[in-house]
Amino acid sequence: MADKTPSIALLLTGNELMSGDIVDSNSAMIATEMLAQGFSVEYKVTVADDLPLLERELYRLSEQFDVLLVNGGLGPTVDDLTAEALANAAGLAVKEHPVALSHLKAFCAARNFQLSPSNLKQAMLPDGCDVIPNSVGTAVGFSLMLNHCLVLCTPGVPSELKHMLMHEIMPDLDTAYPLRARPMRHRMRVFGYGESGLQQSLEDRFPNWPAEIEVGFRASLPMLELKLQARDQSAASQLEQCAGQVRALLGEHIVSENGSSMAESFVSLLQSKGQRFTCAESCTGGMIASLVTEVSGCSSAFEAGFVTYSNSMKTQVLGVASDLLEQHGAVSEPVVRAMLAGALANSGADIGVSVSGIAGPGGGSPDKPVGTVWLAWGSHEHMLASAFFIPVQRRRFQQWVSAMAMDLCRRFLLDSSQEPNYFRERRVK
Amino acid sequence: MADKTPSIALLLTGNELMSGDIVDSNSAMIATEMLAQGFSVEYKVTVADDLPLLERELYRLSEQFDVLLVNGGLGPTVDDLTAEALANAAGLAVKEHPVALSHLKAFCAARNFQLSPSNLKQAMLPDGCDVIPNSVGTAVGFSLMLNHCLVLCTPGVPSELKHMLMHEIMPDLDTAYPLRARPMRHRMRVFGYGESGLQQSLEDRFPNWPAEIEVGFRASLPMLELKLQARDQSAASQLEQCAGQVRALLGEHIVSENGSSMAESFVSLLQSKGQRFTCAESCTGGMIASLVTEVSGCSSAFEAGFVTYSNSMKTQVLGVASDLLEQHGAVSEPVVRAMLAGALANSGADIGVSVSGIAGPGGGSPDKPVGTVWLAWGSHEHMLASAFFIPVQRRRFQQWVSAMAMDLCRRFLLDSSQEPNYFRERRVK
Repeated sequence: MADKTPSIALLLTGNELMSGDIVDSNSAMIATEMLAQGFSVEYKVTVADDLPLLERELYRLSEQFDVLLVNGGLGPTVDDLTAEALANAAGLAVKEHPVALSHLKAFCAARNFQLSPSNLKQAMLPDGCDVIPNSVGTAVGFSLMLNHCLVLCTPGVPSELKHMLMHEIMPDLDTAYPLRARPMRHRMRVFGYGESGLQQSLEDRFPNWPAEIEVGFRASLPMLELKLQARDQSAASQLEQCAGQVRALLGEHIVSENGSSMAESFVSLLQSKGQRFTCAESCTGGMIASLVTEVSGCSSAFEAGFVTYSNSMKTQVLGVASDLLEQHGAVSEPVVRAMLAGALANSGADIGVSVSGIAGPGGGSPDKPVGTVWLAWGSHEHMLASAFFIPVQRRRFQQWVSAMAMDLCRRFLLDSSQEPNYFRERRVK
Repeated sequence: MADKTPSIALLLTGNELMSGDIVDSNSAMIATEMLAQGFSVEYKVTVADDLPLLERELYRLSEQFDVLLVNGGLGPTVDDLTAEALANAAGLAVKEHPVALSHLKAFCAARNFQLSPSNLKQAMLPDGCDVIPNSVGTAVGFSLMLNHCLVLCTPGVPSELKHMLMHEIMPDLDTAYPLRARPMRHRMRVFGYGESGLQQSLEDRFPNWPAEIEVGFRASLPMLELKLQARDQSAASQLEQCAGQVRALLGEHIVSENGSSMAESFVSLLQSKGQRFTCAESCTGGMIASLVTEVSGCSSAFEAGFVTYSNSMKTQVLGVASDLLEQHGAVSEPVVRAMLAGALANSGADIGVSVSGIAGPGGGSPDKPVGTVWLAWGSHEHMLASAFFIPVQRRRFQQWVSAMAMDLCRRFLLDSSQEPNYFRERRVK
């Protein structure tokens, strides 16, 4: 093996990939892990479980690349053809591999599973290949040199693939290619900056941005992820400096720098401030509560939420005066303020947010079109409210408004003076 | 063009596809639409925005397939190389295409956009190609014959691709290949049958299943989708008969036959029965309410939900007696019954569900391990309750339990006597 950066291709196999029955998330995961360690996937082929086609592609790609990662086709069924195809391509026999067999036996024994005859097929591998251990499933991986290309065969089950990649394949590649260029990068998740203008702002603000530091953007809806990457080792110090400049520009528009979601960042802020949160939801219908309770350990910061979809429930559950509703309508400042006051009183929470809006597709009016939403946030003593307009499809609307609700509370807890600028649709290419 | 079923390949281009920054959902969508009309994608290549590589792949694939659908690379930036690559592969010049130019001008004029110089690049197409109209974006598609292969170039933005596929490309292929085999199929979404045993049940129950009717399964988590497909036109009547047999076997375990989600099916059942629903959620944290309110028009069936995460909120908001909590613990039959009674009383709804369980990763005990959950469902007069054990990762647990909660209410409204059998993890390959 060479010690420079290798050329890498990916070969995915599976009828379910070609029929559209599943969306392939494995290859994005592979690419992300590879890139993080200075490797990149240059070429990707996807085929059905078809033996002659698999053989042909294995051979063809092994002639063109240094490393070929094959994903899928390691299972126990007749559709699983990777071992046979690779053996054929290499002119080898398929034989029972003792390491694979003992793995299978041990895996099943530890779980009190019966080892089925079809499982035994998973120990039949190209003669002379090396086994890549799989501690989380029955399918071992295996590797073989073919035409000077290192062919690595991995399981299609995402959790097994990920485990094998992180614990076996990446460490091996790391050792095999010590002289590759390693990327140095920062990632920041941004929300509320007016993301469509972020690129322009960076260009305007930093006209002398060093060419060695690449700037990239990635939709991590509803947030935007900003990536700064040093092109080589020598730019490492410039990377730190650039990250500091961007941090100074964006301030509290940065939600996280460690990959945390909005809800994760918000819950850990609540915990660090010792504050308990509540929410009163109309158009978001429980999504804010659901996102907060997705975070494990949230119980120290969240005790109760209220989904009051109808007007009468806003009155009955949250104590919103019915004449407020009649006079101003449910989507109005007085109503969201009263909803939040009711939720804070009912729950005893320290801070909270309330939401009332028109998610659509029905329910709009010339005065309050679909996409109109009022939010109130803060504490009983210091309550703020504002209207926003988010004219997007129903579920997207709910997602955006839920993120805004948490973000407004996050900024409140940080006592931020930076005004958020929430909306413009971002096109994902 | 031939009139039989054509061989079809897909070529996807985009740096963001190779870097793992986005997961490719376009190709699954293309495959699904193609299959529904009797076409199938046999081979797929994905490459970065690299001109020589694109040229080479366009040429290679055009030699091997009848139809090549190219996706991506039609935008206005320097990374968008599809037109240039196809022109090079075909030995043609790139020229301003009058139809593409007038589309661009009209599209921008209708939206009061300034036509930018970079947009003009989108009218530069291979000389002599045909434009494929795009009524929802600036990038027109285009097609060209290369080596007897019909090359169709489409935009990467999913909504534009889908529109172009449905309104332009599929109708053209339909006309060009009138004699292809058209699939005939039924899809049924199943929940609570004990899905891992479904294939075995079908085999046991129908030993003489006709070979012309293919049976497939697809995870549509947390449901399972069962597909019955006739291999050719002559099997159409057998398909109907098989679908009837499967329907008789599965009964109310079938949630929908029209692709509806659990929440959509549940809300329309509530509406057709004129019943209003409420929920009292602890471990699901608002997810049930959020799924119900994702369905537009749900307000006729849903007015309020309660997220009572802490014990004191179960008492304060839902009136659960604190000695019940002390005596039995929050995850118990008396507590979920009291939670549901409180939610029904607070909301005036006709039926509802309550949930209390241990989502993990913390909070388990030998007596009530992580994954234990109690549900109560039904009406004030006729309330049922049961415990389940769903030992999966936190978010998956919340998703399963939310689906079960709706399913139990669905069965209650149908007065079903079929016992659901909820849990075993399904592996998605």
